[in-house]
Amino acid sequence: MSFNTFGHLFRVTTFGESHGPAIGCVVDGCPPRIPLTEADIQPYLDKRRPGQSRFTTQRQEPDAVKILSGVFIDEASGQRVTTGTPIALLIENVDQRSKDYSDIKDKYRPGHADYTYDVKYGLRDYGGGGRQSARETATRVAAGAIARKIVPGLTVRGALVQMGPHRIDRARWDWAEVERNAFFCPDAERAKFYADYLDGVRKAGSSIGAVIEVVAEGVPAGLGAPIYGKLDGDLAAALMSINAVKGVEIGAGFGAAELSGEDNGDEMRLGNDGKPRFLSNNAGGILGGISSGQPVVARFAVKPTSSILTPRRTVDRYGRETEISTKGRHDPCVGIRAVPIGEAMVACVIADHYLRQRGQVGDTPSWPLPKRTER
Amino acid sequence: MSFNTFGHLFRVTTFGESHGPAIGCVVDGCPPRIPLTEADIQPYLDKRRPGQSRFTTQRQEPDAVKILSGVFIDEASGQRVTTGTPIALLIENVDQRSKDYSDIKDKYRPGHADYTYDVKYGLRDYGGGGRQSARETATRVAAGAIARKIVPGLTVRGALVQMGPHRIDRARWDWAEVERNAFFCPDAERAKFYADYLDGVRKAGSSIGAVIEVVAEGVPAGLGAPIYGKLDGDLAAALMSINAVKGVEIGAGFGAAELSGEDNGDEMRLGNDGKPRFLSNNAGGILGGISSGQPVVARFAVKPTSSILTPRRTVDRYGRETEISTKGRHDPCVGIRAVPIGEAMVACVIADHYLRQRGQVGDTPSWPLPKRTER
Amino acid sequence: MSFNTFGHLFRVTTFGESHGPAIGCVVDGCPPRIPLTEADIQPYLDKRRPGQSRFTTQRQEPDAVKILSGVFIDEASGQRVTTGTPIALLIENVDQRSKDYSDIKDKYRPGHADYTYDVKYGLRDYGGGGRQSARETATRVAAGAIARKIVPGLTVRGALVQMGPHRIDRARWDWAEVERNAFFCPDAERAKFYADYLDGVRKAGSSIGAVIEVVAEGVPAGLGAPIYGKLDGDLAAALMSINAVKGVEIGAGFGAAELSGEDNGDEMRLGNDGKPRFLSNNAGGILGGISSGQPVVARFAVKPTSSILTPRRTVDRYGRETEISTKGRHDPCVGIRAVPIGEAMVACVIADHYLRQRGQVGDTPSWPLPKRTER
Amino acid sequence: MSFNTFGHLFRVTTFGESHGPAIGCVVDGCPPRIPLTEADIQPYLDKRRPGQSRFTTQRQEPDAVKILSGVFIDEASGQRVTTGTPIALLIENVDQRSKDYSDIKDKYRPGHADYTYDVKYGLRDYGGGGRQSARETATRVAAGAIARKIVPGLTVRGALVQMGPHRIDRARWDWAEVERNAFFCPDAERAKFYADYLDGVRKAGSSIGAVIEVVAEGVPAGLGAPIYGKLDGDLAAALMSINAVKGVEIGAGFGAAELSGEDNGDEMRLGNDGKPRFLSNNAGGILGGISSGQPVVARFAVKPTSSILTPRRTVDRYGRETEISTKGRHDPCVGIRAVPIGEAMVACVIADHYLRQRGQVGDTPSWPLPKRTER
Repeated sequence: MSFNTFGHLFRVTTFGESHGPAIGCVVDGCPPRIPLTEADIQPYLDKRRPGQSRFTTQRQEPDAVKILSGVFIDEASGQRVTTGTPIALLIENVDQRSKDYSDIKDKYRPGHADYTYDVKYGLRDYGGGGRQSARETATRVAAGAIARKIVPGLTVRGALVQMGPHRIDRARWDWAEVERNAFFCPDAERAKFYADYLDGVRKAGSSIGAVIEVVAEGVPAGLGAPIYGKLDGDLAAALMSINAVKGVEIGAGFGAAELSGEDNGDEMRLGNDGKPRFLSNNAGGILGGISSGQPVVARFAVKPTSSILTPRRTVDRYGRETEISTKGRHDPCVGIRAVPIGEAMVACVIADHYLRQRGQVGDTPSWPLPKRTER
Repeated sequence: MSFNTFGHLFRVTTFGESHGPAIGCVVDGCPPRIPLTEADIQPYLDKRRPGQSRFTTQRQEPDAVKILSGVFIDEASGQRVTTGTPIALLIENVDQRSKDYSDIKDKYRPGHADYTYDVKYGLRDYGGGGRQSARETATRVAAGAIARKIVPGLTVRGALVQMGPHRIDRARWDWAEVERNAFFCPDAERAKFYADYLDGVRKAGSSIGAVIEVVAEGVPAGLGAPIYGKLDGDLAAALMSINAVKGVEIGAGFGAAELSGEDNGDEMRLGNDGKPRFLSNNAGGILGGISSGQPVVARFAVKPTSSILTPRRTVDRYGRETEISTKGRHDPCVGIRAVPIGEAMVACVIADHYLRQRGQVGDTPSWPLPKRTER
Repeated sequence: MSFNTFGHLFRVTTFGESHGPAIGCVVDGCPPRIPLTEADIQPYLDKRRPGQSRFTTQRQEPDAVKILSGVFIDEASGQRVTTGTPIALLIENVDQRSKDYSDIKDKYRPGHADYTYDVKYGLRDYGGGGRQSARETATRVAAGAIARKIVPGLTVRGALVQMGPHRIDRARWDWAEVERNAFFCPDAERAKFYADYLDGVRKAGSSIGAVIEVVAEGVPAGLGAPIYGKLDGDLAAALMSINAVKGVEIGAGFGAAELSGEDNGDEMRLGNDGKPRFLSNNAGGILGGISSGQPVVARFAVKPTSSILTPRRTVDRYGRETEISTKGRHDPCVGIRAVPIGEAMVACVIADHYLRQRGQVGDTPSWPLPKRTER
Repeated sequence: MSFNTFGHLFRVTTFGESHGPAIGCVVDGCPPRIPLTEADIQPYLDKRRPGQSRFTTQRQEPDAVKILSGVFIDEASGQRVTTGTPIALLIENVDQRSKDYSDIKDKYRPGHADYTYDVKYGLRDYGGGGRQSARETATRVAAGAIARKIVPGLTVRGALVQMGPHRIDRARWDWAEVERNAFFCPDAERAKFYADYLDGVRKAGSSIGAVIEVVAEGVPAGLGAPIYGKLDGDLAAALMSINAVKGVEIGAGFGAAELSGEDNGDEMRLGNDGKPRFLSNNAGGILGGISSGQPVVARFAVKPTSSILTPRRTVDRYGRETEISTKGRHDPCVGIRAVPIGEAMVACVIADHYLRQRGQVGDTPSWPLPKRTER
């Protein structure tokens, strides 16, 4: 990761601000001959799109993606496929209603990056949050849709597992449920509770944090490049780069600190397919920075949005003490829309490491290993 | 981060295995004319060195560092200083006692990376853990000692704040205490408890996890390059790359998920120096991926070592089910020695971003900002 | 450089094909607060634009650049300035006249990359050359216009110094002349000759190669990062990446192979400003990969375009021998339009190293150096 | 390339100065299970080693390489093989005879990087040239020996093809001859002439430049990542990074500037193996930045060493005009020893791109391509 690019072989560069003409990204290093049209990408953007329930900001953005480059008709199949050259994706900003920024253009909103942008760059784009706007995450979701097509058999799904102090009951986990409620919550009962709970938060002009879990199934064993290209290291950076994320954990995560060696280490047996079978997954599918073939499990904590009605003490860019409260369209729980974003980041990291492993090692070695031949 | 190198301008490449002739690193991109001798590095290595109490492995390694390149006598000062060229550091492996690896060379230890190395590379160096050995972390500590000299006024300190389920009392936090007990624990009372507790763990041939907190003070505001070079993103990757780490959080971290916007956002006033003063630090010194001038606070969870006496079910590399238990020298709580390692990683990340900020922006803009001149 | 991105701190990612909807680039890492509008970029694109004389392809492309992101109104100055975030530049493709590709879509044009794209990717975008089209170079020119604004006092100018076997007379070099003829030729007399000469080439449906020289003045001493980030190494890669370039040289270049040590090494005296003054510039302004403060001089050889009327033997993608000749709009000497492209690449490399030097070293040390203080 | 590292998947980081304790490199990203011992590397170092004839410096360095990490016994074969982790190579400096540097430590030798190091870093390591010493190139040669083992069927050979103004007769090219004379010259007759010629240069205390040609055979078609990871772009950077190199060209190179399209484009027919056969190789095996399967041909110009007996005008670091002449051990034609170095750099670049192509595309597509299936 560096500046506005991430990935080593599967590389994503994003650009754009909330209130400029467009946002977008360039996906570089994608393998050739993968069928790709806007229809492969749009559903993921639709999932992230705001304004779909009363629990997300009412800003209306169609978020229609347009592929500008990197695809061509494949003579062999007649399909539009990737060519191996950079895929540029463009999403025009539509809902740029003229807005009165007079209150926030000089004042620093507590919990926002207003002050840090000013002190780093000497100026900031206050229009809709500029580059710090969550709008940038749409481009990641678009890139993630391409990443998903690279690793055969890969499935990446996310879910909201905690809102405020209220965790789901993992015994009631049902992936199908995630599609049915406004919270991407796998626990139907908890989802009902969240609806009431969040209505209260919303009506109070307040906000609340959340925890998201992303599970990647079908990750081949052997992905991840120790020591400084570990799969979990790259996942941590990728998830921490999402707006408002304050923590990342893999498998048992912070819970592992409380475990004994006996309880933590995942024992192994042989599966019916002759491959190792783990009896638990405290490792979250990653050992020594390398995928084990188990599902990769990552969780991240999303802080509450700092845009709230309650007036807060702050200073302005000219060095004066003042107060600020935020009116207008905001998500009471930004963690909800972080679900498809987290999925996308996990998909991108896995795709990158899939290509890296193929580059360094070629075909994954067969397992079990051959015994030493007698000489 | 990629493979065995991390950093963008301050770049560290490490090499070496536990049971080879030596480990080491190459520190590239260090500014010139910084006074540097082995004596600047050795104290940090000594802090990490095992065998200093009954609570860490009894392996005896002097960990004497040798500077191979990148320093020269400065004519102006007569001191040995960095030249701006790569600084190679070498640490010879001394305690390579001939050991019987027959039990582990074919079997996969649950919780270790034995299986994943085998399935990734088609072979693994089983001598002392090979590249997955915690011994590699000595080279990071050495690099971190150089990083500390780059950012003027920077102080990076770490502490163990939780062992198993037992947290410290933050009201009793005393940095001076960290130097006085075997656990780098800032809570003297808790440290006494840990001594008894860990004796029990050790005698049972078991192990336990821990949580480490690293605090960096004197971090200039403005470090961190959004969106994919955020300071917290790079910290997350850097800390997650440490052996046995399963989670990373910044500031309020996972606790932020439980907070409301009112409780989370750090309010601002002006300090006596005319600079912004935050009334709390839930952000952990980072907003929008950019340092705010507050102390940078990162925590990471270390799982218990998987090398325990209790026999565990596993398989071997030739596809047979079996059992394994680990005898020999091991840390009952590897989290303890992770303290100086975490410090080093944080120092390296901050030094890198300090140079990056200076590169992109030059001198940090003065704050408060000048008002628009009338025209 | 990697894939479709180049630069380390000043980073340029380009995308787009000749016959898609648009081409463009993302410029990342640009310092903030630099005044920037489309008017700063357009003149350089206009210089590269085809169809301006009978000596370049008659394809009509307005090449109107649009800034999509990365700029904002600076409160202090009221100007539109860079924000330090990614600057996306878009150039729509206009002249996409429906063309009959039936002849070239299966056949490999000798000297073109048709075969190598097919054998690398398993398909190729034959529309207007796809990614191998010279059209991509417009995006570099746009990026170069930004690069020029980063280094104070920098001037980068290029000139055509050889067409076919015909070199200019360096004694007649006049930079003002470069703007006055269709060849960017600094030798007015030679330019007249080229007009006749190239008319002959053009009417014969043939093509011819050229040599371009780029001179960068005002390059601060100290840029370039030995050993693998040398200024000349990066210039070589940057210039070699331009379509049709087959050779790059710095200063005396290949001529240096014929020189003795006495004739090659540039002697030094002190200038009136107390700075070193070189008595010649065989080094081309670079010693040991680091700029010396002299003008940086680079030359590159451009091969003749392979699109010619004469039928040539070739094969097609289905493994059949055949012949091909190219009709339609083509440059008889692609070297001409390479002049602004070469300038742009040199400007980008210098801007990148300017930021890198500022990052690693900070303010350039004062020279002469201070004498050792007695102790 | 950046700072002291080059390569994207096959990555080489070098360190060390001429008069420190050791030089070395870290080779990262090497595929696992490649048999490797010091005996695979030493012969290439021996070829580069000085003091083997009267035509190279008489400095005596055994240049014995030691593998510090990254290899292990393969259980399957019983051989020492690469593990996929970083391979650190160390070469101790032996011939550090105490030398009187009083004359050069303050004065800038014309043509050397003395001044530019001083003005960049504010100091320089004057011992034996410090980091700018040609001694660093030994580490590249060592890395190149590993690179050669990665690409199946690859052969990389270099030859001196010009010394001063005297070119070889290409009709007399005999690779076997390269091993037989002190100049790596493939033209036996020319080699005899060079012996007399260089004796004259040497006795006069002078020096002379040279041109080296490197030919890589067995390079698979499809290597090279357009646009900014072109194979020729990376070769240009790699070769330009060698000390004293002032120009690089591919295939017809600068000669291509003088050619017409008819003469330059390499026509194609089908070979007996059903693969394309080129009727010439002006492209030097690279089209559009991608290897064509033909031999890759690169040439580079090496300037004469600036260390000569004749006194030259210069300045010193304290701002005084003075004169300097260089006594002691020096190569009258440093181009000779550049031959194995050029080979190594070409091998490293090709190995890197071999892994990159495998990463992005996987198995190279079969050729000829399948026809579109009717639907």
